[in-house]
Amino acid sequence: MLLRMSTLFLRTLREDPADAEVPSHKLLVRAGYVRRVAPGIYSWLPLGKIVLENVARIVREEMNRMGAQEVLFPALLPREYYEATGRWTEYGDTLFRLKDRKGADYLLGPTHEELFTDMVKGEYSSYKDYPVTLYQIQNKYRDEARPRAGILRGREFLMKDSYSFDLDDDGLKRSYEQHREAYIRTFERLGIEVKICFATSGAMGGSASEEFLAPSPTGEDTFVACHNCGYAANAEAVTTPAPAARTGEREPLKVLDTPNTPTIETLVNHLNDAHGLGITAADTLKNVVVKVVTPGAKEPETLIIGVPGDREVDFKRLEASLAPGEPAIFEAGDFAKHPGLVRGYIGPQVLKELGIRYLVDPRVVDGTEWVTGANEPGKHAVHVVAGRDFTADGTIEAAEIRAGDSCPVCGSGLSIDRGIEIGHIFQLGRKYADAAQLDALGPDGKPIRITMGSYGIGVSRAVAVLAEQRHDALGLSWPREVAPADVHIVATGKENQIEVAARLAEDLEARGLRVLLDDRAGVSPGVKFKDSELLGLPTVLIVGRGLAQGVVELRDRASGSKDEIPLDEAVSRVLAATD
Amino acid sequence: MLLRMSTLFLRTLREDPADAEVPSHKLLVRAGYVRRVAPGIYSWLPLGKIVLENVARIVREEMNRMGAQEVLFPALLPREYYEATGRWTEYGDTLFRLKDRKGADYLLGPTHEELFTDMVKGEYSSYKDYPVTLYQIQNKYRDEARPRAGILRGREFLMKDSYSFDLDDDGLKRSYEQHREAYIRTFERLGIEVKICFATSGAMGGSASEEFLAPSPTGEDTFVACHNCGYAANAEAVTTPAPAARTGEREPLKVLDTPNTPTIETLVNHLNDAHGLGITAADTLKNVVVKVVTPGAKEPETLIIGVPGDREVDFKRLEASLAPGEPAIFEAGDFAKHPGLVRGYIGPQVLKELGIRYLVDPRVVDGTEWVTGANEPGKHAVHVVAGRDFTADGTIEAAEIRAGDSCPVCGSGLSIDRGIEIGHIFQLGRKYADAAQLDALGPDGKPIRITMGSYGIGVSRAVAVLAEQRHDALGLSWPREVAPADVHIVATGKENQIEVAARLAEDLEARGLRVLLDDRAGVSPGVKFKDSELLGLPTVLIVGRGLAQGVVELRDRASGSKDEIPLDEAVSRVLAATD
Repeated sequence: MLLRMSTLFLRTLREDPADAEVPSHKLLVRAGYVRRVAPGIYSWLPLGKIVLENVARIVREEMNRMGAQEVLFPALLPREYYEATGRWTEYGDTLFRLKDRKGADYLLGPTHEELFTDMVKGEYSSYKDYPVTLYQIQNKYRDEARPRAGILRGREFLMKDSYSFDLDDDGLKRSYEQHREAYIRTFERLGIEVKICFATSGAMGGSASEEFLAPSPTGEDTFVACHNCGYAANAEAVTTPAPAARTGEREPLKVLDTPNTPTIETLVNHLNDAHGLGITAADTLKNVVVKVVTPGAKEPETLIIGVPGDREVDFKRLEASLAPGEPAIFEAGDFAKHPGLVRGYIGPQVLKELGIRYLVDPRVVDGTEWVTGANEPGKHAVHVVAGRDFTADGTIEAAEIRAGDSCPVCGSGLSIDRGIEIGHIFQLGRKYADAAQLDALGPDGKPIRITMGSYGIGVSRAVAVLAEQRHDALGLSWPREVAPADVHIVATGKENQIEVAARLAEDLEARGLRVLLDDRAGVSPGVKFKDSELLGLPTVLIVGRGLAQGVVELRDRASGSKDEIPLDEAVSRVLAATD
Repeated sequence: MLLRMSTLFLRTLREDPADAEVPSHKLLVRAGYVRRVAPGIYSWLPLGKIVLENVARIVREEMNRMGAQEVLFPALLPREYYEATGRWTEYGDTLFRLKDRKGADYLLGPTHEELFTDMVKGEYSSYKDYPVTLYQIQNKYRDEARPRAGILRGREFLMKDSYSFDLDDDGLKRSYEQHREAYIRTFERLGIEVKICFATSGAMGGSASEEFLAPSPTGEDTFVACHNCGYAANAEAVTTPAPAARTGEREPLKVLDTPNTPTIETLVNHLNDAHGLGITAADTLKNVVVKVVTPGAKEPETLIIGVPGDREVDFKRLEASLAPGEPAIFEAGDFAKHPGLVRGYIGPQVLKELGIRYLVDPRVVDGTEWVTGANEPGKHAVHVVAGRDFTADGTIEAAEIRAGDSCPVCGSGLSIDRGIEIGHIFQLGRKYADAAQLDALGPDGKPIRITMGSYGIGVSRAVAVLAEQRHDALGLSWPREVAPADVHIVATGKENQIEVAARLAEDLEARGLRVLLDDRAGVSPGVKFKDSELLGLPTVLIVGRGLAQGVVELRDRASGSKDEIPLDEAVSRVLAATD
């Protein structure tokens, strides 16, 4: 492959796009890899299309290597498949829905569990047919509320999704492990650094679940890692170790006047100063009211979450815990309908009576003692003991995670970082097989319900992740297998230099290299160097002024190293550098 | 590549699918290449996906060879692009429209003229940038009124579409010729027989236009061919040679009673018997009333078409002539609104007066004399002379074409056949460049309006066309480059035979062949042979009973030839056969 920039459909930009906030978005647009068509919807220009195809090829090769078989489903799907599993409703506004000319309901597939299940049910019948793993690489559609960051979170995006079908739980575990290994190899080849994190399974249902998060300061996901035992988890999936239950004598509940204490801080100060209590914010119990909208339900449910007063409710953790229900802010109008709830002074003591569900942070075990609202304006209660003065309806992981929190495995302090979800594997179990009644006929003539695993890699997102993880102030820096070409030959302008560069390019192409040749006439060396840094090919060969002395320059984009080499060694040196 | 049928996700069917009418639909479903998801919407199983990918690869290679550059647009597109060219409305019910969560209008791209134009406008500015040709291979969406024949006419389908951008008409002609050559090579490599036919440009606008029709009895398109001069055209695009205008003395128009003559035949018989006229149906002028619905217009227009009475109006030709307007049946209720139109007795003599537009077949030149309606019940007029007794508002190609009609180039008799549109090239001109104001800055500093060509190949349809053109009663028969594998090795069952077959398969794979190995245990030789004929790989190697005598059988699927060969020559003979 030899691409000549004199005719290549490529124009780089000097300015960042106005709507871009993250480096991958800025650089992929500036380097002419992608262009915006609508919010979260992008076109791929020639170099971007090559990069996207390279990522897809690597993913495909590793899926084939593990024995998965490629199929291809439509993106436009009739409602009935998603109706059967309830996801037509559950997906809410995230689903693109449409009608055909006959008024029949369709959707644009956000994931294809239903279709894969139905396909296997259509072809296979005997236990001898299993196990099988199928995959596709295909456009997916999700009407994100906040499409952002270019192709990092698009509304139309390319994804590899695969599904394993097994006769039993051991088989599912094997399929899951095979995918885990294949994903590790895939991300290694892609040059993407990943952290494998325990994850919640979200709206998908199922049990064991891990995310491949690519560490990046621009990531939307937060994950914790324990440097002692190796535990890593998406913040949404981190479990809070419960302290041992406390027993023993306690003072009785007492209601105190707490005037002018609108915040936890002022409350703690007031109680310590006026009543000599010696408490911290962690001793208070903050009660947060939310509405929970469950897809398909007519009325939102009122729910109260109790967390230690030194922690905020983390809305993403709350969402993950409530899924497929969706939490929403409890507004003034909602309070008006619940006169029993005294805003700013809610305590759990009255919630049973009010018939409102109450879920608490795992730290709120029986016997722990709290300062909380007294359900009267201007008053708080102290010595409020869990299990004595109130009983929660259960626990919920909703409080924010902080660096230094205890590792749920070994108790060491956790670190916190941000990452981009680039892969997800999980043991889906029998949810979709149950909905579709996907059975194999067993050796004894009895049906065996199939158990499934579900596995995804964001193919177009991987391009953005590479841009996030591998760039500098000058531009992109692709790993070789993903790069639009192996080598970028830059002829700095004079006729003779362009001729020599073109000969080198043809030589290298003949030896199997993919070559990008900057043979543009009338473009200054400075502009060409800037473009080469922006485009980010791994190896750059400059045919410039040194040519008069029989010298060219070999650059390595990632390390920045520059090496003057004799012209007659250029081909062999480039081959060595790209080997 | 070595695919083992013992684990391949493939189940062939013995029965044709209930909804299938054409061979490609029946065979592609029975052979396990595709499965139906909804009307006109299909999934691809592993072997089908390989075939589809092979077709796409060949198309891509030939596009790259001609210097076209690959990009990729989204399928989900905002309304504004199509609003600007009027196609949001013009496309009518064929367009899949939807709204996002914010209520903004979107569509699923049926073709991407607007997007390509916008992209070039965004990147290019100088005359030095041109010419350029871009293409993509991408899912397209059209809400066909009658999706049919499996993947032959789908609602979601894979298409290669390309666009050329040139500074002047000569450039456009060159780009058009390059595409024409590339398409000829592409269809040759695909093994698809095509006839290049003049075409109308339909709703696309533009001038020169040719279709690549694949001759097939199941084709939806009709085309004519002249075996004398080589002229070929889609029936919709055939032009009718006008006879020389006749002058000279004529009898005056005369109205005759024509009772009980509901058909042309009874009318002709009556006039010949009762009035001794000696006419044929070709001497009568039949006037057909239609309503024309123009997208965006409030009211349909009433239009009358005059054709010789021995010919029917061909609705597809009429549609092509009126596009983007759409003809509809003129119903009883419509007649009620036009009391001047006497149903069954309409003559053109009064149409000017009634203010109704009248278009005639090109045979109706000035001076020709006709029998037609007298605009009174039970009466017809004779000696009605065009140009004397009525004047048409223009001509229209709407009459049916018949075998033996005159070639518009050389006058010889035309033959008529059916074909499937598999490619289309045409000179779009400046319609979309005008809408987008796509200009290049010329050398003199003045803007040059760009002229475009538009070119398409149906990639998924090509798979169906190959199945239509290459099959027999037993199954499919793929050309090698498209086939899911080069060779199908069938081990007929015994342990030893499967072992030997597997060794051969590995040997051939090591030599670069793509191999499908039937290593299924417990499946009878008869079933395996039937499957191999149904699947249609070009070369079949059978490792069966002859193995005891050191003999295997080499079959050629297309010719049906069978050859017993020594086992130790098997590898070299297969290599020779697949070379």
